[in-house]
Amino acid sequence: MNNIFIIGVGLIGGSFALDIKKLYPKSNVFGIDKREAHLDEAINLKIIDQKANFEDLEKADLVIIAIPVDATVNVLPKVLDEISDNAIVFDAGSTKEHICLTVKNHPKRRNYLAAHPIAGTEHSGPKAAINGLYKNKTNIICEVEETAFKLQEKALKLFSDLGMRIRYMNPKAHDKHIAYVSHLSHISAFMLGKTVIDKERNERDIFDMAGSGFRSTVRLAKSSPAMWTPIFEQNKTNVIETLDEYINNLKHFKNLMEDDNFEAVFNEMETTNRIKDILNGIQ
Amino acid sequence: MNNIFIIGVGLIGGSFALDIKKLYPKSNVFGIDKREAHLDEAINLKIIDQKANFEDLEKADLVIIAIPVDATVNVLPKVLDEISDNAIVFDAGSTKEHICLTVKNHPKRRNYLAAHPIAGTEHSGPKAAINGLYKNKTNIICEVEETAFKLQEKALKLFSDLGMRIRYMNPKAHDKHIAYVSHLSHISAFMLGKTVIDKERNERDIFDMAGSGFRSTVRLAKSSPAMWTPIFEQNKTNVIETLDEYINNLKHFKNLMEDDNFEAVFNEMETTNRIKDILNGIQ
Repeated sequence: MNNIFIIGVGLIGGSFALDIKKLYPKSNVFGIDKREAHLDEAINLKIIDQKANFEDLEKADLVIIAIPVDATVNVLPKVLDEISDNAIVFDAGSTKEHICLTVKNHPKRRNYLAAHPIAGTEHSGPKAAINGLYKNKTNIICEVEETAFKLQEKALKLFSDLGMRIRYMNPKAHDKHIAYVSHLSHISAFMLGKTVIDKERNERDIFDMAGSGFRSTVRLAKSSPAMWTPIFEQNKTNVIETLDEYINNLKHFKNLMEDDNFEAVFNEMETTNRIKDILNGIQ
Repeated sequence: MNNIFIIGVGLIGGSFALDIKKLYPKSNVFGIDKREAHLDEAINLKIIDQKANFEDLEKADLVIIAIPVDATVNVLPKVLDEISDNAIVFDAGSTKEHICLTVKNHPKRRNYLAAHPIAGTEHSGPKAAINGLYKNKTNIICEVEETAFKLQEKALKLFSDLGMRIRYMNPKAHDKHIAYVSHLSHISAFMLGKTVIDKERNERDIFDMAGSGFRSTVRLAKSSPAMWTPIFEQNKTNVIETLDEYINNLKHFKNLMEDDNFEAVFNEMETTNRIKDILNGIQ
């Protein structure tokens, strides 16, 4: 793989670029981004070798699309229009059904691999890119049978070199489950941050009282609204379902407290404690 | 300070003991705990020097009470009954109003300092005790004026040696604000854990999809129900108020999604992003 194009040189795309330049020192890494300033920053940080345009995609061996999912829906068909028959394109979006539907009938569908690397931080932009972000992380591949076998192999080789483990899933199942284990966490963190900020608006120094527990629980509220709004929009039905269940659980907990049923409050927490074992199973 | 008694040799008490033994190598650190096994463990881990009983408290220079807040309400008056006039006692409970009321009229009230060191992890028991837990952490002191000045000085010297910074607050304000920045975080994490476990009950490998974001947001759901149930009970009114506001914010977010008002969804998140600056101000 000589010519590698990164569309969106932020945390996700930039971290791919950094690792790829290490793994394949002879490759040329091109960056495409609607923000010129991000491209300049990415060159200065040695994340990409040079800027490029859509017309340059014809020489691409690999294209990684790492932009918000609403932009992916627009950009992916255009990328497929430009690339050669031997190029493999994958995205990194946190929704899969809408994106897969968008290119379902595209003549170059077999050049696209629908991917969701479960990796990231709450930071964004080229400065947020880090080495080794994908090591030991899970990469969910959807509709693998829709991708040409030889091109799958290329991408899987890269994921393996990056140290990722692969799980195969259909787009509907992906979007449903990821709503629980990722999208809901973001909303719970954002609304926790909002609740505390609203209350403590006039008492800034109250945040002196916040410890590592609050910091951990609210961390995702630092995430980029430009990235997350289209995710919630594309995965609306599933996310609303998780919110309904989360709100009901919170109401139930509140009702138990109002009824002074602290034995049941204890049991609620004790049952949920087994998240320990589950989390120990992650990674 | 020669004779130091730790009541409750778990994460909080044990971490105090470890640092105290380092700071004051000549001191004797005694442990009192209703769980004999924890005392043996604490001795093996060199957290305490020896076991003790309530009758031994007459020789104490310092007593640290680090047990669940319902137990503190029972134990604190008994400790004050036993100690000499020169001993200082402080607790580490996450509620302050109920505990302060309990000893309001105790003849030895001036030997007690109401404290809440904002420090900890989601783990518990002697094994969870760590060196340096209190370094750079905030310690909230309530009703400082009710403690004898000379005894305050002793405790404040210790807190300063441990590297803690002090904030003074009345018990009512402490309990109200801590509900927002600590107690609510725990419930939001426990209910997030519950929501996901309930949903994914029959699909265990879905947790393969959980990344560092979920892990961070749900971390506090590993916390001890025995510690947290009495906190919620003692701080019931404030915690229910925070839950009401949190639930309302979640409902509002859900309504915006149902109305396809994703511009407002974006704004909700963008406004809350300033939690970044607030969190940067912590520590």
